[in-house]
Amino acid sequence: MSWFTGALADLPEPDPIAGAAVRDRAAKVLRPPGALRRLDLVAEHVAGWQASIAPRIERPHVLVFAGDHGVTAGGVSAYPSAITAEMLRAVEAGSATINALARSAGAELDVYDVGVGEPTGDIRHTAALTPERFDAVAQLAAGAVDAAVDRGADLFVLGELGIGNTTPAAAIPAALLGAASIEWVGRGAGVDADGLARKRAAVAAATARVAGVRDPLEILRELGGSELTAIAAACIRARHLRVPVVLDGYIATSSVLPLHCARPGALDHCIAGHRSAEPGHRVVLERLGLDPLLDLDLRLGEGSGALAAVPLVRMACAAVVEVATFDEWFGAETD
Amino acid sequence: MSWFTGALADLPEPDPIAGAAVRDRAAKVLRPPGALRRLDLVAEHVAGWQASIAPRIERPHVLVFAGDHGVTAGGVSAYPSAITAEMLRAVEAGSATINALARSAGAELDVYDVGVGEPTGDIRHTAALTPERFDAVAQLAAGAVDAAVDRGADLFVLGELGIGNTTPAAAIPAALLGAASIEWVGRGAGVDADGLARKRAAVAAATARVAGVRDPLEILRELGGSELTAIAAACIRARHLRVPVVLDGYIATSSVLPLHCARPGALDHCIAGHRSAEPGHRVVLERLGLDPLLDLDLRLGEGSGALAAVPLVRMACAAVVEVATFDEWFGAETD
Repeated sequence: MSWFTGALADLPEPDPIAGAAVRDRAAKVLRPPGALRRLDLVAEHVAGWQASIAPRIERPHVLVFAGDHGVTAGGVSAYPSAITAEMLRAVEAGSATINALARSAGAELDVYDVGVGEPTGDIRHTAALTPERFDAVAQLAAGAVDAAVDRGADLFVLGELGIGNTTPAAAIPAALLGAASIEWVGRGAGVDADGLARKRAAVAAATARVAGVRDPLEILRELGGSELTAIAAACIRARHLRVPVVLDGYIATSSVLPLHCARPGALDHCIAGHRSAEPGHRVVLERLGLDPLLDLDLRLGEGSGALAAVPLVRMACAAVVEVATFDEWFGAETD
Repeated sequence: MSWFTGALADLPEPDPIAGAAVRDRAAKVLRPPGALRRLDLVAEHVAGWQASIAPRIERPHVLVFAGDHGVTAGGVSAYPSAITAEMLRAVEAGSATINALARSAGAELDVYDVGVGEPTGDIRHTAALTPERFDAVAQLAAGAVDAAVDRGADLFVLGELGIGNTTPAAAIPAALLGAASIEWVGRGAGVDADGLARKRAAVAAATARVAGVRDPLEILRELGGSELTAIAAACIRARHLRVPVVLDGYIATSSVLPLHCARPGALDHCIAGHRSAEPGHRVVLERLGLDPLLDLDLRLGEGSGALAAVPLVRMACAAVVEVATFDEWFGAETD
């Protein structure tokens, strides 16, 4: 039994009383009912998971996982694999985009090397991860969540670094959702036309290789990669600790898709942060029933699109908790 | 000559060198070129107006203007006019939605009474403001901008309170942009079907009344209202001081439309914060050539949709200024 099988066996549900209380309050605060409906729903969501009638985001936390991919041997990326290690060092040094966004949004950030310089298997020909490595990565990521929650994390952004990782991000939905007519493969970090053709061929070879696999978590192990596996594990560990997750773009969303396929409802604690420029991302979000907060054609990864949405989650909570109700306001007046 | 005529006569332009420097830097930082294109353009915009190669948003400032409308006699709103005064007091007390959002976003907020309890003329039958009051409101609003900039404001959100003010917000584009086939009138704060019919009739009567008026600023005086005039004046005063403005929804955008019609380019310092649920807002934004950062079906006003976008503007600047370029990163390594 893999780490995931155990982790998915027993999932907490949101507190219906806290969620209903916030929904009720949102209808009574000093504004026309429904004027901020999309944000009110976010506040209700956070209330349910925090089991609090006063949901707040005080310590958003970014976890970035970095890994390398054997499939880069197939010429699927515009960048050489060595860039992953450089970007990992840049994030560690606070010099990457995700660091700047985290400082701006008041978020903590931890970065974990889950396979830089230790590429996964080339998914065209073999499994990305052995069962042992699959579990080891999942346990590391779960521990990263635990450490952040120990420091007070109350909202997670799960990001990734990994040259070549839009290829597994396309292969996972291609295998799980089928529909050969859907274009799962996009240009990622900017591959050219020849590279795009190689990417399509790699996804076709990888999905053909696993055509007989029925377990969605095995699809993750076969086609994902170390940082995709880490995101999936961190996401489900956050669920256990009742901390909501803001999903990033195509890679992060494809990483958690197997959880949904294995157990519908497993992503109920997730908010879609943004809709990326990758066409496949839109389709995966629709299949998950998630409507993203932002739609800005971002295509960086690292967790950037999710982090860009974090202030909206924080504001959504404040706009219910910190605004007077009509009763409070007019009651206060007559005191 | 009205205050606006003078104010529009001499407008500063963005600094092309600072804008170009930030565009150039955005292409060289540690991410694929264009991966955050929408945000990079925002950073370039702020750089041009701040005339700085290191644009930053440190003191965003919300100005809320409140006023009453004679056209409410026509039954155009779901709420009685007395609610404007209550909402003004709630904002002054820090208990309204815009206060909660401002605290969450780290923004200052000032609220100004520009006509609460002193309704404008009923625009179905007469001008909203006399020339004298039009100028007095504009001067007050310009002074509000000056006071905020004295305290360091580096980005403005211009909001409004005013029961009935989606009727002038519809009448202004109806008069300036014509196109009777476009549905300029929406449900505002939630008027019912009968109220919607009365609103349509009021807009038709008001626009018919001013059919011979050619000066867009006279359309603002005739059809706007005190808080709409204040927003227009504050917007153009911010331009003089080279401080960018994030536009809110239908009311704020219709308020500034006459500036654009009177002098194309007058709104070049503006960023569209969000696309509201009011169908007319989408059309006005398109005519202005503005693509909003958020599209969340918000319909509150107060400046809320613009303020919700402020963290994105702040992050956009950080994502260029605070991220290492490839040259800086690899140069630093070999030192």
